[in-house]
Amino acid sequence: MTPTPTIPSDAELTELRREFHRNPEPGWCEFRTTVRIVEELERLGVDEIHVGPDALDSDERLGVPDDDVLAEWYERAAAETDRTDLLEQLEGGHTGAVAVVRNGEGPTVGLRVDIDALPITESTDDDHRPVAEGFRSTNEGYMHACGHDAHITFGLGVLRTVLESDFEGTFKVFFQPSEELLGGGKAMASGPHIDDVDYLFGAHVGLDVPVGTVVAGLDEALALSRMAVTFEGESAHAGLAPNEGRNAVQAFIAAADNVYGIPRHREGNTRVNVGQLRSDNAANVIADRVTASIEVRGESTELMEYMRDAVRRYVDAAAEMHECTAEIELTGESIRQDCDEELVELVSGTVTDRSDSLSLVRRDALAASEDATYLMQAVSENGGAATYLGIGASNPSGHHTPRFDVDEECLPIGVEVLSASVLQLLS
Amino acid sequence: MTPTPTIPSDAELTELRREFHRNPEPGWCEFRTTVRIVEELERLGVDEIHVGPDALDSDERLGVPDDDVLAEWYERAAAETDRTDLLEQLEGGHTGAVAVVRNGEGPTVGLRVDIDALPITESTDDDHRPVAEGFRSTNEGYMHACGHDAHITFGLGVLRTVLESDFEGTFKVFFQPSEELLGGGKAMASGPHIDDVDYLFGAHVGLDVPVGTVVAGLDEALALSRMAVTFEGESAHAGLAPNEGRNAVQAFIAAADNVYGIPRHREGNTRVNVGQLRSDNAANVIADRVTASIEVRGESTELMEYMRDAVRRYVDAAAEMHECTAEIELTGESIRQDCDEELVELVSGTVTDRSDSLSLVRRDALAASEDATYLMQAVSENGGAATYLGIGASNPSGHHTPRFDVDEECLPIGVEVLSASVLQLLS
Amino acid sequence: MTPTPTIPSDAELTELRREFHRNPEPGWCEFRTTVRIVEELERLGVDEIHVGPDALDSDERLGVPDDDVLAEWYERAAAETDRTDLLEQLEGGHTGAVAVVRNGEGPTVGLRVDIDALPITESTDDDHRPVAEGFRSTNEGYMHACGHDAHITFGLGVLRTVLESDFEGTFKVFFQPSEELLGGGKAMASGPHIDDVDYLFGAHVGLDVPVGTVVAGLDEALALSRMAVTFEGESAHAGLAPNEGRNAVQAFIAAADNVYGIPRHREGNTRVNVGQLRSDNAANVIADRVTASIEVRGESTELMEYMRDAVRRYVDAAAEMHECTAEIELTGESIRQDCDEELVELVSGTVTDRSDSLSLVRRDALAASEDATYLMQAVSENGGAATYLGIGASNPSGHHTPRFDVDEECLPIGVEVLSASVLQLLS
Amino acid sequence: MTPTPTIPSDAELTELRREFHRNPEPGWCEFRTTVRIVEELERLGVDEIHVGPDALDSDERLGVPDDDVLAEWYERAAAETDRTDLLEQLEGGHTGAVAVVRNGEGPTVGLRVDIDALPITESTDDDHRPVAEGFRSTNEGYMHACGHDAHITFGLGVLRTVLESDFEGTFKVFFQPSEELLGGGKAMASGPHIDDVDYLFGAHVGLDVPVGTVVAGLDEALALSRMAVTFEGESAHAGLAPNEGRNAVQAFIAAADNVYGIPRHREGNTRVNVGQLRSDNAANVIADRVTASIEVRGESTELMEYMRDAVRRYVDAAAEMHECTAEIELTGESIRQDCDEELVELVSGTVTDRSDSLSLVRRDALAASEDATYLMQAVSENGGAATYLGIGASNPSGHHTPRFDVDEECLPIGVEVLSASVLQLLS
Repeated sequence: MTPTPTIPSDAELTELRREFHRNPEPGWCEFRTTVRIVEELERLGVDEIHVGPDALDSDERLGVPDDDVLAEWYERAAAETDRTDLLEQLEGGHTGAVAVVRNGEGPTVGLRVDIDALPITESTDDDHRPVAEGFRSTNEGYMHACGHDAHITFGLGVLRTVLESDFEGTFKVFFQPSEELLGGGKAMASGPHIDDVDYLFGAHVGLDVPVGTVVAGLDEALALSRMAVTFEGESAHAGLAPNEGRNAVQAFIAAADNVYGIPRHREGNTRVNVGQLRSDNAANVIADRVTASIEVRGESTELMEYMRDAVRRYVDAAAEMHECTAEIELTGESIRQDCDEELVELVSGTVTDRSDSLSLVRRDALAASEDATYLMQAVSENGGAATYLGIGASNPSGHHTPRFDVDEECLPIGVEVLSASVLQLLS
Repeated sequence: MTPTPTIPSDAELTELRREFHRNPEPGWCEFRTTVRIVEELERLGVDEIHVGPDALDSDERLGVPDDDVLAEWYERAAAETDRTDLLEQLEGGHTGAVAVVRNGEGPTVGLRVDIDALPITESTDDDHRPVAEGFRSTNEGYMHACGHDAHITFGLGVLRTVLESDFEGTFKVFFQPSEELLGGGKAMASGPHIDDVDYLFGAHVGLDVPVGTVVAGLDEALALSRMAVTFEGESAHAGLAPNEGRNAVQAFIAAADNVYGIPRHREGNTRVNVGQLRSDNAANVIADRVTASIEVRGESTELMEYMRDAVRRYVDAAAEMHECTAEIELTGESIRQDCDEELVELVSGTVTDRSDSLSLVRRDALAASEDATYLMQAVSENGGAATYLGIGASNPSGHHTPRFDVDEECLPIGVEVLSASVLQLLS
Repeated sequence: MTPTPTIPSDAELTELRREFHRNPEPGWCEFRTTVRIVEELERLGVDEIHVGPDALDSDERLGVPDDDVLAEWYERAAAETDRTDLLEQLEGGHTGAVAVVRNGEGPTVGLRVDIDALPITESTDDDHRPVAEGFRSTNEGYMHACGHDAHITFGLGVLRTVLESDFEGTFKVFFQPSEELLGGGKAMASGPHIDDVDYLFGAHVGLDVPVGTVVAGLDEALALSRMAVTFEGESAHAGLAPNEGRNAVQAFIAAADNVYGIPRHREGNTRVNVGQLRSDNAANVIADRVTASIEVRGESTELMEYMRDAVRRYVDAAAEMHECTAEIELTGESIRQDCDEELVELVSGTVTDRSDSLSLVRRDALAASEDATYLMQAVSENGGAATYLGIGASNPSGHHTPRFDVDEECLPIGVEVLSASVLQLLS
Repeated sequence: MTPTPTIPSDAELTELRREFHRNPEPGWCEFRTTVRIVEELERLGVDEIHVGPDALDSDERLGVPDDDVLAEWYERAAAETDRTDLLEQLEGGHTGAVAVVRNGEGPTVGLRVDIDALPITESTDDDHRPVAEGFRSTNEGYMHACGHDAHITFGLGVLRTVLESDFEGTFKVFFQPSEELLGGGKAMASGPHIDDVDYLFGAHVGLDVPVGTVVAGLDEALALSRMAVTFEGESAHAGLAPNEGRNAVQAFIAAADNVYGIPRHREGNTRVNVGQLRSDNAANVIADRVTASIEVRGESTELMEYMRDAVRRYVDAAAEMHECTAEIELTGESIRQDCDEELVELVSGTVTDRSDSLSLVRRDALAASEDATYLMQAVSENGGAATYLGIGASNPSGHHTPRFDVDEECLPIGVEVLSASVLQLLS
């Protein structure tokens, strides 16, 4: 029989989740969010808290926004908190936190949750619960449309549960920034807190699974690489001297045209797409600049890398062909890391023990990309084990849509299943 | 000997030009400009004035901006004039005017000048004369950077000169909107006022010709066609269901890639360029929309049409290939129409008569596109004759640059040469 | 216990195989081969033999060679046989045969074998057994490099075995032409002899499986479609009048460029390739003709059809773009049809019963395309069951290579396993 | 008054022309042709004759055929002549000859004629004069379809005339091989015989000009560069392992697609075309080899070079993109060199003096490419003067067509006009 921990009340969890829902912040701009997490951790009496540059490897952050965007969100957060001491540590997009609690000898168990929101305008429909019950996003144009508000709540709820239990060993909660951009996972996995973790849990709410159902292991995340590509050439008058230009549009076309044709791979499925084109030169000017975003995926990390390396070669050759230069900035990346059977088994047991109230799906495919995989891989490579749970939430509308929401019953379920799993390892 | 008309004082012309320079408005938004022209015409006692829909064929306007842009400029103009009676006639981008004066029997002579400005931010350098002498653009971001302020002044100055002379026949001045977009020439040539014109003059200041030099005939305007192209497809998740999209980026690429390769033509030079790319879909979404601007040119009208028709075919086929739709909106077009020798000869004589103060270039190539050609063609097709003059202005910086300016001595020169030429035909 | 039929002697089978090996003929040119098969059938006393147009649906043949090629092979065959009566039925590429034997009441069981060879020049190495033992190909440039000589032997051997056994029901052997081109499967499946088949067996030797091992069910054949594409435009002098041409090279490029970028599909892997380019116009002539071969594949029939339909659309649109015409001739096609568990089980039992001499692989993936799938699908759709066996042959060199050969021990094994399986159903 | 030289009889010239017409040989294979020219030169008593490697710079030859092609034509010639001494000097494609005659002090005058034929099958129509009068090509598939047979006749006829006249100075006749491929001009201009030439004449018959009309200066030859391009990659099975190939078809497409879009040039017209595609890999194999021919032209030598350099850059970048290699072999090239007014004037005078029988066109455009320009440029660069004449020939069908022929009256006219022009300079 798995432990039956004392979890926080439903109301407490709901209140937490709704506060975070009301205040969504995008990747690397989670200033207020990080401050509030730390305040809650302090309230729980956690005395080892790492934030910002101490929580992750800042050099490995991907897709950090421009300074003016960071500054705008920073100011917004500064207007709402007096914890300048904390905020200053986060300046420049060093968001996120790691909480650590220790008690005697025992293994080190980790829980990773993500904390960022999406650039989506939340629905104003009266029957959208956040509207009806008054916790709609107050940052217009941004929204917790993927459930990370619930994930933060899981992190805080499980931490409180563990603290209130007899446990032996160490428990760490990774509040990871910038998952939506696939920008924070690698930075946190390269940071100083993952190396001694023996067991790692991750979790996602929703995913079109009904509340009460738990997936013990979500596998097959698509590995993904996203690149911001800039071609620069030289302008010239398109009528008078077309040959004097170096045409960034032609370079872009040569690259984009060919990347869609990167050879299919014997080892499995790949993906490629080009988006966010932008070139501002008028049509009577040979364009000196084109920007675009290119995204590739693979069933495996190797397939993603095959595609990413091809994109780089194609982009460089296309630039050379048209005497332009090309810059490729990696703005997001994730790998594939499947769950370890050992932990899938452990979580499955936890769920089965509650089979009167919960349904189990042992393993399922995660039809998406996810950068928790970096932390899972780090743990696995160190000889540890990791799994990534799905916590059903009967979400009324798909992820990344304006009417996304979760059945808040998922909150105590997630906290309980995760806590029970963690405590089984720490007792 | 050509007539020696009484032209307005230099100071008067300079003042007019500076007022227009201070108040630049882009194509189809010349609301204040048109009102001020009409006020000046009224002051001169012109009693036949056609504005807006009566001045041109509204259906033939190309490149009319979106309603909100029109509305913004309209409001700006409304704030500065009490001539609501006039403004209301112009609403919706029906700008421009035609002034007509008649006296007895005689031929009908026309003068065409253009009145629009450019979306260029004027220099703030202290040594830029409009700054030094206080007539810099007050519409930030817009500028008379091609000398149309001088052209309006020519139109009004020549009209006053003609009115003050003994003349026999009819004189019309066409104040044409939206030349920079190549959007107004065809509309004015399709309007009701060109058909009875026996002789037409056009003129351009500057063009890197020193003040005091006059070109009697500018030929070889490149025929041009500019198209706003929109590809629409259908979005799909680029990772989960790429095949369910209809990829507007791929359609755009197939079109743009191929239009650069439209076969060269035996009859002469052609041009093609693609600019202003825009697709906002993120790279994880198959793009459902791409917009771009495609511009083609030819040494002759036929070559331009060859290119334009090819673009249409290529765009349609590319859309079909990728199951998208394509819309092509013609946003500007001009033809080639060379000057008639008869009028080049007449203008040359006018200049030669003033050879102590003026230098003559008989004919030169106009290395640009120009939609006065539509009016010139209309006159020629009716058996009349047309020419397009260059009035040297020692401009310190190239056309379409932030420091463009003209030596204002060009103003009386232009008025005198044009008036003398017109009056020679009307006496 | 499965039946233990009396199979022909190893020597007899080896002799048959070697005769066919010596006389390879490519798809739809199996004139001599078909005649020899019929002679053997007659020798065995089979009295219901269908050849040529009676054996399959001639209209469904794909990839039939040009008349002059057919004529050349026909003449070659005619020089070696006096069975003009038979040959005449085959004229024009109507090769292949179906043999039927009936005895009392019982189910109808079918065996499908393919009979064509490849355009490969057989090795002349002394240690290549067909050289060493004197049965190398006598049709220089052609070779049984995929083991169809063994397949014909299976067909004849199993038929003799069945005839020599007590059996109840009907047994049909389909000697299918033109498998290498994927040109004959659909024609035979559309012919008049498959509809009443309750159980169908197919088999392939080799596939890098050691002799003595039998695979009871080969699945996952890649569905394939192969198209001969011809673009026709109009020539013009590339220097003097490039615009007067309609450039078939540009049309080809637009098509080929884009087909490599047909969107990846959510349902699984796809393939696309372009080969056999040919355009004979000199570079100073706008090309009026380009031919190429385009091949697409999919993990499923639907995926292949998705790719094939896209190729058609792309080719047509590319032709239209460049004012050319395009013709697409389907020259080969195969589908995916996996084996029915019922027959895999039956064959597995047959092999297991001989486990002292044979090893069983229950199911394996067929990493290739195969048009036996059409006959398998026809049987399945009629409520019957089909399987496709792999008969290990320890082939010393890969399929489709000049040194391909089989360990002839595979011959009695194949005949025995197939006969036992057939007879179990017919007793 | 220009000299009135004694020219050979019409019959003699006709006989010569017909003999060469009967024996056409393509570029660098003019073995028999060169031998026969030398025999004629010897008969005329020319004692300074340079052939093969002594006549031109062998290293600068472009487009020399493969050894087996050379050998075949060599053998064919060897079968028809006993002048093995001469033939051996020509072996390996060192064809062509330079004849020099000297007499006292005086300028050096040159005449350049070309001697190669085309891979065109001559008409067999009864009303095609070479058929009717028995001098149709005896080298089936090859034909003097551009009049070089007449040009050789000019060379020999003018030489005889000069020899029979009083002349002072040096006269050289350049019998240039391989003009049709644009392969011999540069080699001859780089050879040892052009540097001291003060005046150079070239001539072309036909060009749709009636017999009796002479063009004194043909200008505006299009500069041309022709490249044989080979892409090499690596094969792989297109179904099983497409990613393991390096696709030469994709590299070719990327290059060809983009070269059609090389930017138009401000200085004038350019051309580009791709032809002779060939890739033999079947569609189920990733192609490891594609060959094609790319040809570019320009109104000027600089424009041609701009295009040629772009092709090189594009081809290299496309190969790199797809990890292939590319080889670019220059197989033909010509430049633009217009005629010197001094010689146009001189030739014009010659024609005007014969205005009862001849009509003059002073200058006209040569709507083609021509490598006599290399020799003309060499002479001009040394301070000399050159012109290129058109000798009307009322050709009944266009150049490079199976029914091309010349009115043989052009022969004495060409010889007379050229001789008179040459002798005017040498007297």
